[in-house]
Amino acid sequence: MPLGEFDLIARYFTRTSRRTDVLLGVGDDAALLTVPPGQVLVATTDTLVEGRHFLPDTAPEAIGHQALAVNLSDLAAMGADPAWALLALSIPEAQEPWLEAFARGFHALADRSRIELVGGDTVRGPLVITVTALGHVEPALALRRSGARPGDWLYVSGSTGEAAAGLELLRRGTASADDPLVHRYRFAEPRLELGRLLRGRATAAMDVSDGLLGDLGKLCAASGVGARLWLEELPLSQELLERFDPPDCERLALNGGDDYELLFTLPAATAARLAPELELACEVRRIGEIVTGRGVTCLREGVVASVAGAGYDHFG
Amino acid sequence: MPLGEFDLIARYFTRTSRRTDVLLGVGDDAALLTVPPGQVLVATTDTLVEGRHFLPDTAPEAIGHQALAVNLSDLAAMGADPAWALLALSIPEAQEPWLEAFARGFHALADRSRIELVGGDTVRGPLVITVTALGHVEPALALRRSGARPGDWLYVSGSTGEAAAGLELLRRGTASADDPLVHRYRFAEPRLELGRLLRGRATAAMDVSDGLLGDLGKLCAASGVGARLWLEELPLSQELLERFDPPDCERLALNGGDDYELLFTLPAATAARLAPELELACEVRRIGEIVTGRGVTCLREGVVASVAGAGYDHFG
Repeated sequence: MPLGEFDLIARYFTRTSRRTDVLLGVGDDAALLTVPPGQVLVATTDTLVEGRHFLPDTAPEAIGHQALAVNLSDLAAMGADPAWALLALSIPEAQEPWLEAFARGFHALADRSRIELVGGDTVRGPLVITVTALGHVEPALALRRSGARPGDWLYVSGSTGEAAAGLELLRRGTASADDPLVHRYRFAEPRLELGRLLRGRATAAMDVSDGLLGDLGKLCAASGVGARLWLEELPLSQELLERFDPPDCERLALNGGDDYELLFTLPAATAARLAPELELACEVRRIGEIVTGRGVTCLREGVVASVAGAGYDHFG
Repeated sequence: MPLGEFDLIARYFTRTSRRTDVLLGVGDDAALLTVPPGQVLVATTDTLVEGRHFLPDTAPEAIGHQALAVNLSDLAAMGADPAWALLALSIPEAQEPWLEAFARGFHALADRSRIELVGGDTVRGPLVITVTALGHVEPALALRRSGARPGDWLYVSGSTGEAAAGLELLRRGTASADDPLVHRYRFAEPRLELGRLLRGRATAAMDVSDGLLGDLGKLCAASGVGARLWLEELPLSQELLERFDPPDCERLALNGGDDYELLFTLPAATAARLAPELELACEVRRIGEIVTGRGVTCLREGVVASVAGAGYDHFG
């Protein structure tokens, strides 16, 4: 039975605050939040649309996870500490099991990431979910896209292409919900710890959300540099290699989004010094170098190679 | 011709920053923003869905205005100074005239209110617009819903019911776009100046978004008090009175939303002292008093009256 809007919000999205920096959370016209002295606010918003960002039959728990994860990944890319989230939920009907599972997925990641839901809006409409994530960072240490310099080493965390592979398998109808690649697509984990470790150290960073190749192009454009990408160094997981042909693996790794990996650059000296610490945080792989000029040049075993695609564009 | 997502965002939603507290705006993974020392962040989000919050044929300029106004009204209700906004826009197709007009409506209000767009997301999907508005306020002066005390005087700003009347006329198909009531519905102005004036003075405040009667009930619940509402004191505009029967005027004033008026309470002594200043800011009307107990009692010329409705519930 549908509940009233206010009951709904209260039941699934109001919880006892665990953060002392929340002066006022869900329930008033707006939240009141304390940014620590010496830090700046970091703010980002991302929207998920049914049929575009997730398939219509997606488990609501995964949607709850993804709606927050895509935003946390942006905070990670800035080197920020997550703090507060706002949730704007447009849903066709207020079904309790759906809401319960969605909230479970959302709150599980929120708890792990120490981010707290402090406000939102629930309306009847097509399934569209917008989360705004707020965090903070010391301004001098914040990671931006614009600081890469020729000679910097280019890195990516973890492995890329797995989430896109999971989505492709779902679309083909050949994967079950407990397929590891599907799980990677639905429950990818934002790289918050790595973002913290990189702050004040990486010259540029961004999260891979529209595909490594296109996103690297954006990083280069923002920094006014070019990049050489070594295709043979793309971090392809064993799972991916076993289930897709090499050309498909490369395509997925270059053009797939949703892995929530971080793409970043380090000066060579910093890279050498930081290597042990980086490897403790998560696997990172050097995949190329920053050069003077513009755009991304792909190299295969040292030879310039042409590859297809350049990221995902919603209106392309 | 559809533009690419990044071009779109760049063309209509990136402007030169006028605020020195924006360290990093549109274009990176997240924005970097400086909250003034001694102030806390105020954060709110609201979603508009086509067919629910605005009619399908609504001028995009009005939608741009409304998407920001509904959020600014929340900041006003907290006594906050607006600072930054994030826009999440799901649209069926990237039509330039639509985007241009939407952006015009959005930015016109943003400029007047000194709030700046610092980030967002544009995706293809059903027409759903979510804005997150961020501001700041000295924490001790912030307005909340929870501080009303028995004996406080109850006020509302401006006039209520006009926006709902405009919507009703549009639904009936009997109003033109330049009808003053339609204009009031589409371009209602949030009460930011009044919010600033009330901070540290009003014991409770909220904006009227779901109807005066229902919202007053929420204010009472949050404060643990009751209220007596004097029906003959409802501020009905001349325009409303001339075009609707008295019972309809009352119904619209009690249950209509979207006027962006502020409902607030003042201790009697403060009210007397503040009256001249309040009248300069905008028209305000005393419409009742706060009492011990629970809930809202409506009185007509001193006699308890029964009225219909209690605010808008999206899933009721």
